[in-house]
Order: sequence, then C-alpha cells, then structure tokens
Amino acid sequence: MHAGIELGGTKTVVAIGKADGTVTEEWRYPTTTPEETFGRATQWLKERGQPAGIGIAAFGPVGVVRGRETYGKILATPKAGWAGIPMVEHFQAAFPAASITIETDVNAAALGEARLGAARGLDDVAYITIGTGIGAGILSGGRLIHGALHPEFGHLKVLRHPDDKDFKGVCPFHADCLEGLASGPAIAARWGAPASELPLSHPAWEMEAWYLAHGVLSLLAIVSPARVIIGGGVSQAQGFHDRVNAILVATAAGYFPVLEEGGYVVPPALEQQAGICGALLLSAC
Amino acid sequence: MHAGIELGGTKTVVAIGKADGTVTEEWRYPTTTPEETFGRATQWLKERGQPAGIGIAAFGPVGVVRGRETYGKILATPKAGWAGIPMVEHFQAAFPAASITIETDVNAAALGEARLGAARGLDDVAYITIGTGIGAGILSGGRLIHGALHPEFGHLKVLRHPDDKDFKGVCPFHADCLEGLASGPAIAARWGAPASELPLSHPAWEMEAWYLAHGVLSLLAIVSPARVIIGGGVSQAQGFHDRVNAILVATAAGYFPVLEEGGYVVPPALEQQAGICGALLLSAC
Repeated sequence: MHAGIELGGTKTVVAIGKADGTVTEEWRYPTTTPEETFGRATQWLKERGQPAGIGIAAFGPVGVVRGRETYGKILATPKAGWAGIPMVEHFQAAFPAASITIETDVNAAALGEARLGAARGLDDVAYITIGTGIGAGILSGGRLIHGALHPEFGHLKVLRHPDDKDFKGVCPFHADCLEGLASGPAIAARWGAPASELPLSHPAWEMEAWYLAHGVLSLLAIVSPARVIIGGGVSQAQGFHDRVNAILVATAAGYFPVLEEGGYVVPPALEQQAGICGALLLSAC
Repeated sequence: MHAGIELGGTKTVVAIGKADGTVTEEWRYPTTTPEETFGRATQWLKERGQPAGIGIAAFGPVGVVRGRETYGKILATPKAGWAGIPMVEHFQAAFPAASITIETDVNAAALGEARLGAARGLDDVAYITIGTGIGAGILSGGRLIHGALHPEFGHLKVLRHPDDKDFKGVCPFHADCLEGLASGPAIAARWGAPASELPLSHPAWEMEAWYLAHGVLSLLAIVSPARVIIGGGVSQAQGFHDRVNAILVATAAGYFPVLEEGGYVVPPALEQQAGICGALLLSAC
C-alpha cells in the first residue's frame, strides 16, 4: 500500500493507492492546526494499513532538498501556527517503516500531469497555477526542479501590458511581477470585480492571457518545457488556454517553432486530482 | 586518459587530462570546416593515446539529449557547412572504445565553474556569457538542464530600462529580449561604439548591469541558483559584477534574502578554461 498526502492551505487530502499514481480511496478535510491535520491523516492511514511509501505534496514554502537543515519543514509562512513545522519528521515517527518524500504542491501537480495527465509521457513539463497567488512546478529531464532557494515563479518580472500602465499591482514587494499583476486578487483589484464575475468579452481576459503568455515565454527561455499546463481557478475561464496560445505564437515571432503547432499551453487533465496523484507517485521515489 | 573538446564558433580547444577536470595538455586552433576541425582533434588525440572518455562542449544549437534523433548533431546554425553535422558519430567512429558525452558550451562552462571554479561545491548554478550573443548554462540539483527544445536564455524578454525606450534592439525576432538589448552588438548599436571603448563612467554600463540583473531575477524565479556567474567579453569591465549585484538587491526589494549577503553574481574563476574543464568533467559522465 502506498499513501499520498496533499496539504493545502485550506484543505488536506489523504489517499491510499498505487505507486503509479492510482488513487484507491481518498478523504478530504479542512486544514486546521498542524496537530489536528496531521493526526487525522495518520489515524485514517493507520486504519488502512502500513504504507510502504508516503508522498507528501505541501503548500510552500517547504524544504524539499534532502540533507538540508530545512528538509521536510514548512518554512516561513503567513499561515498561523505552521512556520517551522517538521512535517516529514511527524509522519516518519508515525510510520517508521515507510519511505517518505516531500515536494511542493505545484511540483507534485507537475509530476502528476506529466505521468498521468495532460503532459503524459513528457519529461520536460511546467505546471502553472493561478489563484490567490501564482506558482509553478517544473519537471526537467524527468526530475523536479528545486533550486538552492525556493523558486518563486509568481515573482517573475514581466513586461507591462500596453494598456496596463497605471495599475500598481498587489505584490507588496514588486511593481511588475506576475503574481502582482495577474493573480486572482490582482484581477479583482484592477477591475473592481473578481475574475469569476467578469464576462469573457471583458478586456481583463485578454490582458490576463497576455501576462501568462509572457510568463510561459520566460519558462521557454530558461527551462524549455515540451508542454505547459495552466490550472487554478482563474484559468478555468472558457477559451483561456486558446488565448494564451494565440498570444504566445504572436509574441515569439517564429523563434520557437514548437509554438506554431498550437496547443502548447493546455489545461490540466487531472483537474483537482493532480496534486494527490503526484503525491502517490512521489511515494515511490 | 580522458579527453575534452571545446568546439567554439571561431576556435577549438582539444585537451587531455583527468576526469576531475584537470587539464594535462591542450591545443587551441581555429575552427574551420567540420572535416578539418574534427580531423585535427582526432589526430592530436590519437598521438597521445586512446581516451576512455571524451567530453565535448559545442557551440549551439546542438542535440544533447540521448535517444533523440538530433543527439550529437549541430542543429540549425548560420555557420556555413555546420548544420546537421553529426559530431558525436564522428568521434565515436574514430574512438570506438571511448564513452562520449556532448553538451552545449555554456552548460560545460557552468559545470566547470560549479566543480572547480567560482561556484565550487554548489549544485545549483547558472553561468551567463555576454558577447556576440547572450547564453546561459544551468546546473540544477547537480544536473545540467536541457529542456525539450533548446533553452535560449538570450531570448528572454526583459523589462525596458527606463532610459531605453527608443532603441529597437538588434534581435531580428524580438524587440525586448536580453540578447537584443544587452549583447555586445546591442551595446555597439545603441551607443555607436563597442563596449571595449566605452569608459566606465558611461551610462552604457549602468544600463547593461540593469539588464543583466533582470535576467538574473528571472533565473531566480524559475530555477533559483545558489550563485550566478557572468562571463564573456562584455562582463570584463571593471566593477561590472558589483553593479549587477547592487541593482539586484535594490530590485528584489528584500524578497530574496540570499541577495542581501552580496556577492551573488560573480565573475568566472576559470576564465577561458571553464569550457574545456567542463568538457573533461563530462568525459566521465
């Protein structure tokens, strides 16, 4: 038996299944305190057996590089009571025989989509999520990228959209970062209404696609994925991925032939299951 | 005996030495036709023995992912007579017993600097070179990044420097890419004189450092290196790396604590030897 735990900022998913990412049974419940949240997962798993491996997909920032002092811990987070919590240590104590692997939620989702979803069979994949923030997980040459610090794709600087000169953005650090200009809160602040209330003909959508296309272009220049998946609430607007692709093709100006074929940017195929499938896949790493 | 070959656009270096990157003997000669250039390297090596491994650092674009149809070949290049040349095949035929590994020149330099130079002991390193073009090699988690296409760091889009609104750039594809705005030819086109003739007090240098700092910020957001090395002719201006660091600290606005310590961006320690040392290191991969 393999186990996966997806620790989100508001909900947690715990699942048992196979190391190939197949979920046999899962349980979703609200994320509360570390003690309660971990305790529920532990009890639920123990009732089902002893997992050989546990994969954890955690909200970030989280220490994911083995051997570092920060490994397995939730790092500085505004979420009350969670900073410094040693997550791997907790589950290792509860399941001493299990091998445990921890990853960021976006990396787990990238892995899930690369093995079982919208980028099946590809070894170079990026998964971007747009919601309250903007994050990305990257699989490069079949391995998840960690970096020395904590890659914060959302704070990537992007060119300003020509019609977006005056908006200050919502990032407290940067005037011109992707998260500050294109996250859900940025859309709401700029247009005075949340993305879900803006009709598809609203100029917000073309601008949003423009910013994401520029984020994708930076990924192309630096890690060169074979496919990019964009998920998260904001991306669910009808035709959003088509808009991003159209802007990508126009902006890349023929330089990246792969874009000309169309369909470079796609929605997730696993939808809300990408993270937990990724966690199960990690349980065998 | 291990061998390294660094194939540059204008010069080639062939060396023998150890798998730890130590060069015992080397020969530099102009890159001419593929037949002549390869023939010279082959003959020089055969006079010295049979290498167990050969590492090749080649100008790009070049196929570096094993198993792909493009592996070991120089791809589309404006360099006459070189497109499609099967480089690995040539050397494998000449040295059938040798294991051969090929990489881009910038990746080899990144590896050389990470193992023996300015980023010694680090597993997350980027090496940027500024000359006729701008390129980057990236080591992430101890492995060189290849990507599905060919990462072209030079074509990364960057924000315009506030005093650089009217310059069209020199990239035939993009108005706002790093190479088009900050390569040697871009500097010469913007200011009417090559970088080597511009005094250190000239505004060109602050602008150049500004563009490079923005390129480094994108690397931080996407692959998060522990250190970034900037080499190549343009970077040799006195105090250039200090200028880049100062702009980085100011622009990151406290978001990346590692930058506050200073010295995040450094010059290469191996100078012109980074590529051939990297090639020797690759000979044992």
